[in-house]
Amino acid sequence: MNSQYPSALLENAVNEFAKLPGIGRKTALRLVLHLLRQEDSQVEEFAQALVTLKQDVKYCRNCHNISDSEVCGICSDKSRDASTLCVVENIREVMAIENTTQFKGLYHVLGGIISPIDGIGPSDLQITGLEERVKQGGVKEVILALSATMEGDTTNFYIFRKLHPYDVKVSIIARGVAVGDEIEYADEITLGRSILNRTPFDESYKLK
Amino acid sequence: MNSQYPSALLENAVNEFAKLPGIGRKTALRLVLHLLRQEDSQVEEFAQALVTLKQDVKYCRNCHNISDSEVCGICSDKSRDASTLCVVENIREVMAIENTTQFKGLYHVLGGIISPIDGIGPSDLQITGLEERVKQGGVKEVILALSATMEGDTTNFYIFRKLHPYDVKVSIIARGVAVGDEIEYADEITLGRSILNRTPFDESYKLK
Repeated sequence: MNSQYPSALLENAVNEFAKLPGIGRKTALRLVLHLLRQEDSQVEEFAQALVTLKQDVKYCRNCHNISDSEVCGICSDKSRDASTLCVVENIREVMAIENTTQFKGLYHVLGGIISPIDGIGPSDLQITGLEERVKQGGVKEVILALSATMEGDTTNFYIFRKLHPYDVKVSIIARGVAVGDEIEYADEITLGRSILNRTPFDESYKLK
Repeated sequence: MNSQYPSALLENAVNEFAKLPGIGRKTALRLVLHLLRQEDSQVEEFAQALVTLKQDVKYCRNCHNISDSEVCGICSDKSRDASTLCVVENIREVMAIENTTQFKGLYHVLGGIISPIDGIGPSDLQITGLEERVKQGGVKEVILALSATMEGDTTNFYIFRKLHPYDVKVSIIARGVAVGDEIEYADEITLGRSILNRTPFDESYKLK
């Protein structure tokens, strides 16, 4: 046998799985063998779900979040505050922030962050769309909620400069010691930032 | 929104991925978003590889290993020793043993091991097929290479009794301290077994 695998069909399926991030060849084989043990219909449903998603996926006209309709459920929710936009990298951050139930405004999904190493420039992101939304008026505050990395900071500054001509407040989510973390082990930049950005404390303050 | 996900199509794809063993919902979402960033054709190839495998997969007539043909590459290899059969649970063990390059006989893939808890009895496995191969003659030795677990041992004893009437040697792969392991940390059953099954030592002995 030339190949490590006894079947070219099997090898092909393993190869496809191993292209996914964080899936090595051993895990890929385990997943493929699991699918082999399932009913034909289940494997077809699995394959169909992916193809249908890829073919029919839509992005919200306003915020560019993944959506089944022209305008996503968050943007079309009249009870939400349309004067506050939260700028995030991707749908995963939308879901993470929604899970906190602390934000009642709308989102703007960039679809990535500026990263010269990966060849991603401002024109690859939905930054012009953000400027358009602000230009149309009605937006009072733009909250930057990108990763606390160099790429995130670059993107933050780029957006800040783009929005500078408009009458809009630009803020950034707090950086500080994570809830549950011990001060002793916090890195100095985070700790320093948490002291600079200290907030008033009173009896109503709770860790939540 | 009723659902955590902004799109039912997305949720459906995440659900399908999350059915796979060891894939939680967060990982499933990461994988689905990765596929969303790929070309349409790549997602179709991924889906097609799985459906084709499931529809067209064959099992070797002799050893029941996964194969693209009636008889697998190992069984049809005339240079291999057809008088020695190695009994394994699944194709993954075939691949693991092939990688050692220490075995030149043929395999017999059971398709699982006896596990009453999972509802797997002897009749669900390829044990009758093994008995048939031995009955036809030509097999001198059957090597049991199942997991060193209770289920593996149950299956070993069952096979041993089934093959007892025939003129065939039944052996089991060595259990002992793994290469690279420190004696101090070996469990007592393994260590005891490795002393009972000690092998002659001479200058040619090498860890490999």
